[in-house]
Amino acid sequence: MSVTYELVKKCSKTGARAGRLHTPHGTFDTPIFMPVGTQATVKAMSPDELKDMGAGIILSNTYHLYLRPGHELVAEAGGLHKFMNWDRGILTDSGGFQVFSLGALRKITEEGVTFRSHIDGSKHFLSPEKATKVQMALGSDIIMAFDECVPFPAEHDYARKSTERTTRWAERCRQTHTRADQALFGIVQGGMYKDLRTMSANDLVSLDFPGYAVGGLSVGEPKTLMYEMLEHTVPLLPERKPRYLMGVGTPDCLVEGVMHGIDMFDCVFPTRVARNGTVMTNWGRLVVKNAEYARDFRPLDDKCSCYACRNFSRAYIRHLFKTDEIFGLRLTTIHNLHFLLNFMSKMRTAIIEERFLDFRQEFLAQYNR
Amino acid sequence: MSVTYELVKKCSKTGARAGRLHTPHGTFDTPIFMPVGTQATVKAMSPDELKDMGAGIILSNTYHLYLRPGHELVAEAGGLHKFMNWDRGILTDSGGFQVFSLGALRKITEEGVTFRSHIDGSKHFLSPEKATKVQMALGSDIIMAFDECVPFPAEHDYARKSTERTTRWAERCRQTHTRADQALFGIVQGGMYKDLRTMSANDLVSLDFPGYAVGGLSVGEPKTLMYEMLEHTVPLLPERKPRYLMGVGTPDCLVEGVMHGIDMFDCVFPTRVARNGTVMTNWGRLVVKNAEYARDFRPLDDKCSCYACRNFSRAYIRHLFKTDEIFGLRLTTIHNLHFLLNFMSKMRTAIIEERFLDFRQEFLAQYNR
Ligand SMILES: [Zn+2]
Ligand SMILES: [Zn+2]
Repeated sequence: MSVTYELVKKCSKTGARAGRLHTPHGTFDTPIFMPVGTQATVKAMSPDELKDMGAGIILSNTYHLYLRPGHELVAEAGGLHKFMNWDRGILTDSGGFQVFSLGALRKITEEGVTFRSHIDGSKHFLSPEKATKVQMALGSDIIMAFDECVPFPAEHDYARKSTERTTRWAERCRQTHTRADQALFGIVQGGMYKDLRTMSANDLVSLDFPGYAVGGLSVGEPKTLMYEMLEHTVPLLPERKPRYLMGVGTPDCLVEGVMHGIDMFDCVFPTRVARNGTVMTNWGRLVVKNAEYARDFRPLDDKCSCYACRNFSRAYIRHLFKTDEIFGLRLTTIHNLHFLLNFMSKMRTAIIEERFLDFRQEFLAQYNR
Repeated sequence: MSVTYELVKKCSKTGARAGRLHTPHGTFDTPIFMPVGTQATVKAMSPDELKDMGAGIILSNTYHLYLRPGHELVAEAGGLHKFMNWDRGILTDSGGFQVFSLGALRKITEEGVTFRSHIDGSKHFLSPEKATKVQMALGSDIIMAFDECVPFPAEHDYARKSTERTTRWAERCRQTHTRADQALFGIVQGGMYKDLRTMSANDLVSLDFPGYAVGGLSVGEPKTLMYEMLEHTVPLLPERKPRYLMGVGTPDCLVEGVMHGIDMFDCVFPTRVARNGTVMTNWGRLVVKNAEYARDFRPLDDKCSCYACRNFSRAYIRHLFKTDEIFGLRLTTIHNLHFLLNFMSKMRTAIIEERFLDFRQEFLAQYNR
């Protein structure tokens, strides 16, 4: 198998676990946060900056790359790793989520989804076969089965039909997929219904994917409901396979996800809020644009060792935001990604040292004060 | 003197010269190109990227820093070097140029200029004394005398009165300036009139500044006229002092400026066109956004050793521009600045090796083909 999960340590009190993910582009410690590089670039960052902060795997979006520059062009360039000069891990999503959230006039059938591009209105069709072939052309290390993310809220009947179709689509992806250097992950759906989550997990596990995502969460439901679904779903997945919670990236959700046994996360949150001048610190969020930081010559977070915090003050970064200078959002993006990657690493150490629950409690008390 | 010029080699056939500029923040080879960091940041760049490409001195704008974040705040931060984390040279302009080009409703008197901020319309007053004090608060290594840049075209009478006033203002700057760790340069004006250029140069030289700028060129006049003015003006300046041609940064003008004996240049051109997707190569300009580069997997310039050219293709950079990704303009900015700094360094070597005229001829033949 091209991508394998090595279990290093299980928390004795929670579902949390520390592990290692072996991929054709390196071995990476889990739990891991994957920065999002939607259009073959993590917004405002260079590959070297990502490496400097210890990023292992990044996520890129099949829907966006399919539309621009096109997967054939990326294949011609030698694949996505070479195109964007990133020699560590890449996971691509299936495009399903974007087709449903960005594509206009989408029409869904058993065969696949017809939609119009959000860029120029051109008509396109994505199916399990097409999404798989596009991802094979991109050459990412981990590719995702084409699914429908059940919206929230959804009726039980809709959620059931959609989830059953997602499983049939997953099987078609599996049949299409031929690249031995890529791992195809299945995505558990089922909306907010435990019986459907059970059905989806069992059906996908019987198809024996090398890894599983929990999809359809963090879609607008209350956090307690998301945690309840995680608590129900994760134990249905095989212990020796990696587990990926899609679209989750706030510190509080990350710590809860890890507690429930999740190994991999991705989210645009840290990079998106950074570009708006908001940074995460050990004491919660800080809006560096605010007037109160105009003459604050301390770093964003005095506990942080990132490039931004080592070299620049809140006052300077605020000035850069007030004057619309790109370097400002470069610095906040570096800080936020560094903060989250470091946060994952601290959780892993806590798991290994059998003090994860204490770590979680201390962090939440400080972060939410 | 805080800033001194060391003449290393004079070209035997032209006015070109190689030297070294000693400043409180390091010694830098001349001729030198100074990247522009208008608002205490060279747009899209980090200080480390500038160092990696060998940048020695950068220019920052007094007008912009006076308005945002304010010179008192910069002084409170420990000065501009510390505020922006740049420990090499900084030259600040006097604000004169921006007051006249950006400030609204400006009113000029012998005392100074009243104007309204281009940002919020607030009313301000800049005088020789005020501009000098602002630059003393900023703490740049080289500061410029407050001047009026004579517009083009201008009547002889207007140009004469303006130039005479600029000289009186230069004297007032000199009287105000007290920081021993800064050098105050005078600015030769005189429009496109040789008699006025002579008058201005002689008057300023008698005030014995540690360096001289040639101002009021590259303001819309034909290039041949600019070269004629340079040819007339530069020989009027003392050989043992540095000479700075303001606002010039295209390769052809740089090579002509050097030929006429200029040591220092600044211009927003390389960074501004970079952000629009235009790069300079040894074979002229290349608009990387153009469709012809969509599947061009070669670097921007295969003779260039910059970070962008070592790691990324035209196709990738074009993709970044088509998708409005910040990393695209970071890469073109890196390339353009690296190209110009490298170009200056090659000119210097050619001067030292007594083959500057050959270098100039070869470059122009290739660049303009
Ligand atoms: Zn930081
Ligand atoms: Zn280059």
